[in-house]
Amino acid sequence: MAYQKVEIGVSARHLHLTQEAVDVLFGKGHKIEPAVPTEGQFLSTTRATVIGPKGKFERVAVMGPCRKFNQFELSKSDTFTSGIAAPLRMSGDIEGTPGFTVVGTVGEITFDKGAIVAKRHIHMGSLTAERLGLKDGDSVQMCIKTDGRTLVFGDTIIRAEGPFDGEVLSHIDTDEGNAAGVGKGTCAYIIGLTSDLPDLD
Amino acid sequence: MAYQKVEIGVSARHLHLTQEAVDVLFGKGHKIEPAVPTEGQFLSTTRATVIGPKGKFERVAVMGPCRKFNQFELSKSDTFTSGIAAPLRMSGDIEGTPGFTVVGTVGEITFDKGAIVAKRHIHMGSLTAERLGLKDGDSVQMCIKTDGRTLVFGDTIIRAEGPFDGEVLSHIDTDEGNAAGVGKGTCAYIIGLTSDLPDLD
Repeated sequence: MAYQKVEIGVSARHLHLTQEAVDVLFGKGHKIEPAVPTEGQFLSTTRATVIGPKGKFERVAVMGPCRKFNQFELSKSDTFTSGIAAPLRMSGDIEGTPGFTVVGTVGEITFDKGAIVAKRHIHMGSLTAERLGLKDGDSVQMCIKTDGRTLVFGDTIIRAEGPFDGEVLSHIDTDEGNAAGVGKGTCAYIIGLTSDLPDLD
Repeated sequence: MAYQKVEIGVSARHLHLTQEAVDVLFGKGHKIEPAVPTEGQFLSTTRATVIGPKGKFERVAVMGPCRKFNQFELSKSDTFTSGIAAPLRMSGDIEGTPGFTVVGTVGEITFDKGAIVAKRHIHMGSLTAERLGLKDGDSVQMCIKTDGRTLVFGDTIIRAEGPFDGEVLSHIDTDEGNAAGVGKGTCAYIIGLTSDLPDLD
């Protein structure tokens, strides 16, 4: 396999909300707008407080555009400080996950599910995946070389969507970014399949 | 190389202090005592507050026994919340590192250096190292297999000390432990040298 270069997106804790939830939290018709004009998913200018059994997070970013479900993505470190015992899941896979409370500018909602630690993944077009001999759902090793914290992430899931052959972008969280010493300009490479790792058990 | 099994020790932020500092912070003659009777380095029953430019940490564990220098080990995530811009260093290598303030039960001290993000490492006896074809200072790949967050830590430094051939124990921080999904009973294996990773640049 060629060593495909991958851009790195490190996500801090954030919320995805439905428009119905936004209406309650920030007022009827409140618009989730991008901080910087953009296509596709964006970091909005809207912030909320998220409360768990042991602690709360202030100024949590709401992502846009609105989705069909409410989801709070936090790091494993955040699960300990907040007491929200979120499992490792792919985005959208929220059945059986813990709930959380969100406080906006005009209202608050307690959701009964939706808290996840996001499973690391790489977005790419289907044509790129095909060229690399990969398909949606495959699990790869992604290597990040940094000064002193070089790291290979196994269990990195390929999200191959759309026929386009463009950006190859990984999403990892702050624990993962910090463990690898990721800074401005750091990039990653796909170096193999997770199943290529040695059998250790 | 045989895949040497490695126990995993995940360290939360902690302090190493001199007896002189302990005297000022907790009262003349205050003893740093282990929470559980033990040999060698231990987690003590003493706690302190550490203050940085942007935030503080309460109930930070003081490790024992006392050392000849004062050092605060924090995670990369902690550097952002506290504003203490600690570099990645091996323990004891504190020249040119940022300072921090410690508040004890009876006094406080502002140190002018000593804050580090600890570089991951593996302690082993010299005989074990020799058997593995490794020596003190070598840099290896340490693989941790977990359910969904399997990870290979490159840049893991071998600390081979003493002639004994006993426990092989890695020290990683909370960012690193969480990025790998480390839980009770998780263990690691040395699977190669960091220099065995593919050339990507």
